[in-house]
Amino acid sequence: MAQGALPGFRDFYPQELAERAYIMSVWREVASRYAFVEYDGPPLEPLELYTRKSGEEIVGQLYNFEDKGGRQVALRPEMTPTVARMVGARANALRKPVRWFSIPQLFRYERQQKGRLREHYQLNVDIFGEASVAADAELIAASLDMMRAFGLGPEDVRARVSDRRLLRAVLTTIGAAEDSHEAVFAVIDKVERTPRAVSEEKLRAAGLDDAPIGKLFELLRARTPAALREALGKVDRGVEERIAEMEQYLDFTARLGVGEYVQLDLTIVRGLAYYTGIVFELFDAKGEFRAIAGGGRYDTLLASLGGADLPALGFGMGDVVLGELLRARGLMKAAARPIDVWVAGGERTVDLQKVMTLAAALRAEGLAVEYSLKPQQIAKQFKAASTAGAKRAVVVPLSTEAVGGTEYTIRDLDTGEQTKHPDASAVVRALVAIRDER
Amino acid sequence: MAQGALPGFRDFYPQELAERAYIMSVWREVASRYAFVEYDGPPLEPLELYTRKSGEEIVGQLYNFEDKGGRQVALRPEMTPTVARMVGARANALRKPVRWFSIPQLFRYERQQKGRLREHYQLNVDIFGEASVAADAELIAASLDMMRAFGLGPEDVRARVSDRRLLRAVLTTIGAAEDSHEAVFAVIDKVERTPRAVSEEKLRAAGLDDAPIGKLFELLRARTPAALREALGKVDRGVEERIAEMEQYLDFTARLGVGEYVQLDLTIVRGLAYYTGIVFELFDAKGEFRAIAGGGRYDTLLASLGGADLPALGFGMGDVVLGELLRARGLMKAAARPIDVWVAGGERTVDLQKVMTLAAALRAEGLAVEYSLKPQQIAKQFKAASTAGAKRAVVVPLSTEAVGGTEYTIRDLDTGEQTKHPDASAVVRALVAIRDER
Repeated sequence: MAQGALPGFRDFYPQELAERAYIMSVWREVASRYAFVEYDGPPLEPLELYTRKSGEEIVGQLYNFEDKGGRQVALRPEMTPTVARMVGARANALRKPVRWFSIPQLFRYERQQKGRLREHYQLNVDIFGEASVAADAELIAASLDMMRAFGLGPEDVRARVSDRRLLRAVLTTIGAAEDSHEAVFAVIDKVERTPRAVSEEKLRAAGLDDAPIGKLFELLRARTPAALREALGKVDRGVEERIAEMEQYLDFTARLGVGEYVQLDLTIVRGLAYYTGIVFELFDAKGEFRAIAGGGRYDTLLASLGGADLPALGFGMGDVVLGELLRARGLMKAAARPIDVWVAGGERTVDLQKVMTLAAALRAEGLAVEYSLKPQQIAKQFKAASTAGAKRAVVVPLSTEAVGGTEYTIRDLDTGEQTKHPDASAVVRALVAIRDER
Repeated sequence: MAQGALPGFRDFYPQELAERAYIMSVWREVASRYAFVEYDGPPLEPLELYTRKSGEEIVGQLYNFEDKGGRQVALRPEMTPTVARMVGARANALRKPVRWFSIPQLFRYERQQKGRLREHYQLNVDIFGEASVAADAELIAASLDMMRAFGLGPEDVRARVSDRRLLRAVLTTIGAAEDSHEAVFAVIDKVERTPRAVSEEKLRAAGLDDAPIGKLFELLRARTPAALREALGKVDRGVEERIAEMEQYLDFTARLGVGEYVQLDLTIVRGLAYYTGIVFELFDAKGEFRAIAGGGRYDTLLASLGGADLPALGFGMGDVVLGELLRARGLMKAAARPIDVWVAGGERTVDLQKVMTLAAALRAEGLAVEYSLKPQQIAKQFKAASTAGAKRAVVVPLSTEAVGGTEYTIRDLDTGEQTKHPDASAVVRALVAIRDER
């Protein structure tokens, strides 16, 4: 029994559970405001669901095995294949656009790094069946309104947006041949964490000359479409189309009230090859943590998985980095319900019966009630009430008559203030009134 | 992609998710009233955690495998070993009694029977560190208050309670030798589903004579302690002690407001060998479904697992049988949040911008808002609002002037009633006022 949870897996004691519940409650609340509805799938899926999307290489990172029926199965490492399967199965029946979210626990067998988890909860928000850039704006707005709901403003969190089509057009404009683009993306993806000389060396290896390399670094510093236009100098039609769409996207995010968070940043490539349009990532503004969330448009993925041919976009936001950030900023809360009332009584069974009767009446009104489950000294009961963090205690009339007579006493355990009440009904009325005042 | 979820695993589309969320919300609400706090553990645990409690035989029913680090692991088939581990690790620090609940998804590789699931969600409610029979009453009361919160009264659900110690004392009284008890328990456990002649044959094989067998069947029909006393005739001290405790338990359940649900029933044995005291099961009164919930006292289990030596009791309640019963009784609800407002506008981008601005203002007030993510005919937008089940639509002033002028219109989509408002702020105020009225 010395043994704990498996390495990389978390136990959620009540405090940690309450923090997890807080994060999930904010996710659900904001998702609902944006009219996203919740779904879920199985945590165990056919292995093939993941290899079809990500190739056989993914297997090395999975919790996969053969079940007792000879099926190759895996704990889900991500939600997209599941939701693609579910949407595909009912593509015709579902109202479009499909606006769904889910909060699955996901599993990856990562080589254990210090403190690296092998499971986490990840909010997944997706829109299926809408190609308009307004959908892209709606999606990032939902992610940023979540930041705001957690108390994280534009000074805490930045959204960096890009568009691989725009980046391609820009690369073409500065003279990078098409067959160099994938290699250039790989360099750009790591450019922030790489010394410039190393990046330049790799870009040269990809076939770029010194002039376009210099230009590229200039372009990557652009934080608005206007700055990008200016840095480019000449803008051909392919680029202009993409810049105009980016401008509309940014305008829409401003209309949706989250413009202050958002900036253009062509260094955002996102590792995943399946993105087809605008992509974004959320970071803490101080750059202390890994990305908080990320996503974008993946219009061709569903069809390529053999499902519905629907345009699609989505983002994921995990509970771990977000939780670290909230704690670091003093913004973590716990969604735990306090005990409203502790009912106390005398030391005899008849006292306990009276306590139970009152507890039942209070619970029937929806109050959270605890009491000592065995007769004990009233001083001990008060101590227990206080340790439990109860807001109020009620003392039922003691059978011994020594203290209380026939009256009930309500005591505020913060202020010590006491009120007397003639019977149990009066106590219930008084405590319900206090609850409803709030 | 034709492939669906694995056999025995459920996809939760929004409707099914909303029903699952409803069940969980009632569980959480009532558990909170009883001052139980939520915890959770990992869905994947060391295999040994289960074999230590249940022996190697359990492995045949598990989703178990070797992970990439060579660890023998299993998807959790039950929560008790996890909670025993967690309580054991902090036994000294935790406030006693520990009152915890959890809603884990559990997994068993059952030989597939028609419609039999391989996963389900199970509410687990436990009390650790309290030997008093009041704790037993508190526990069953919580389970029955949940029934009540679902709308299930004593005419819908019955709680059948027994006590293996009482049953042992009764068997001794009627002359069944101690070494026959386990065999007799096994017969009693199945007595309701077995022809009487078959049960009698097995009891004879266990060493009972005809007279005690006849007496036993009489005793098993007793539904109150008084009836049991009467059927027994002579009651020695060992039996009397147990009957008195059962009477106190039943009295406590009545004080706690759930007495009408509860009856003595010595046929409730519960398969699990680790129960040490009062046990109970909840059934639908018509006997159409499998047990809704079951549990009892298991005072020695934690110590036997190598953890804390704490008295313990708990129950489990799954989502599947409960869901079937709620559906059959017309009591299933869906915890889905409707769309409060659909914002509609004209067919141009400038109209969509106005729609977005109002949507953002309404969402900032916590309202659930959707709108068409691309400019389209207003008739189509109204149709979409109606299909989405939105309660109200707001039309922003159209850029074309053809219809609306500068006024905003709120339309109740049920009644068709319309009101006009001079600007967006007035719309927000009006809709917030409607929301707050409820």
